[in-house]
Amino acid sequence: MMKDLPLSKVYRLLEPGPVVLLTTARNGRANVMTMSWHMMVEFEPPLVACVVSPADYSYAALRATKECVIAIPAVEMASKVVEVGNCSGRDVEKFELFHLTQITAERVKPPLIEECFANLECKVVDTRLVDKFGLFILEVVKSWIDPTQNNPKTIHHRGFGEFVVDGETITLESKMP
Amino acid sequence: MMKDLPLSKVYRLLEPGPVVLLTTARNGRANVMTMSWHMMVEFEPPLVACVVSPADYSYAALRATKECVIAIPAVEMASKVVEVGNCSGRDVEKFELFHLTQITAERVKPPLIEECFANLECKVVDTRLVDKFGLFILEVVKSWIDPTQNNPKTIHHRGFGEFVVDGETITLESKMP
Repeated sequence: MMKDLPLSKVYRLLEPGPVVLLTTARNGRANVMTMSWHMMVEFEPPLVACVVSPADYSYAALRATKECVIAIPAVEMASKVVEVGNCSGRDVEKFELFHLTQITAERVKPPLIEECFANLECKVVDTRLVDKFGLFILEVVKSWIDPTQNNPKTIHHRGFGEFVVDGETITLESKMP
Repeated sequence: MMKDLPLSKVYRLLEPGPVVLLTTARNGRANVMTMSWHMMVEFEPPLVACVVSPADYSYAALRATKECVIAIPAVEMASKVVEVGNCSGRDVEKFELFHLTQITAERVKPPLIEECFANLECKVVDTRLVDKFGLFILEVVKSWIDPTQNNPKTIHHRGFGEFVVDGETITLESKMP
C-alpha cells in the first residue's frame, strides 16, 4: 500500500546510502536494476545523482525516456535484490522472474514496485555528466511510502555480495537537517 | 597508524554510504566539515562525486585548491562528527577544538585525520556541475587504512541528528564487484 510521502522527506531515505532498485520503461516494457551509486544533491525539490553505466541495459532507456523510479527495498528483499543485479533485462523479464509487482506511477511511465517500502518517481534534469561518467541528475517529482512496513531496515553494499544491514539508531544534537 | 590501501578497494568503503569528514587546506590553514552527500562514480581509478554547498566554509577552499581528503570515522567518533558539523571554520579552529590529529598527506595539502579508520586523498577532476549543484567529481589519488581499527562500524545520517549504525553483515551470491 503506497501513501503519499512529502517531497521534503525524501533525503531522509536516500542520505543513509541504501541499496535501491531502479525501474525504467521503454516501448511499453518495464525493467529493473540494482543500484548503489546514488546520493542526494538538493533537499527540495529533491535532486538525486546516480550513476548508471552504459554497460547496464537500463542506461539506454533512462537516457532516451529521461524517467525512472527509485524503489527502496528492506532487508527481507535482499536475496531478490541481488538476483535482480545478477541478470540483465536484455535476457529476462525481471518483474516476472522475481515476482515483483508493478504499480502504475503518477507522474512517470516506469512502475513503482509494490514490495518496496518507498518509491520515488524521478525525471532526469541534467545530463552534462552522462557521456563521461554515466552520472544522471534526477528530480524526484512524486514520492510514496508504504506505512504498513514498520521501521524497515535497509542494506548497504560493501562489494562482492557483502551487505551491512541497518543496526541500532542513535540520536545526537545536530543543527543539520 | 595509516597503512597503504590499494585504490581498487576504495569503493568498498564509500559505497555503503557512511557519514564522512572532508578536510581542506588554504593559505596554510586546515579545516574539516561533516558530509553525507557523496557516491562512487568509478571503481579504478576511484572517482567520487560529492556535494559541498557554497554555504559551507569548505566550498571556497575546495574550489580554489581542488584538493581534499575524505576521512571515514567509526561510530566511536559519532559525537565529534556531529560537533564538527554543528560549527563553521569561519568561526573556530575545528582541529584544535575537537582534538582531531592532523597527519600530513602524501599527494595533497589537506591533512589526513589520525582518528579516522580510513583516509582518501582526492583531487577535483571535473567542475562542470559545481556552479549549479555544488557537485564536485574527485579522483582518489592515494588511500590509507588504519589496520588497528578492527571491523569499524560506520554511521549513516537519516536527518536531524538521527544516525543508523552498521548492524550485522550478510553475504549473498553476487556477480557484482
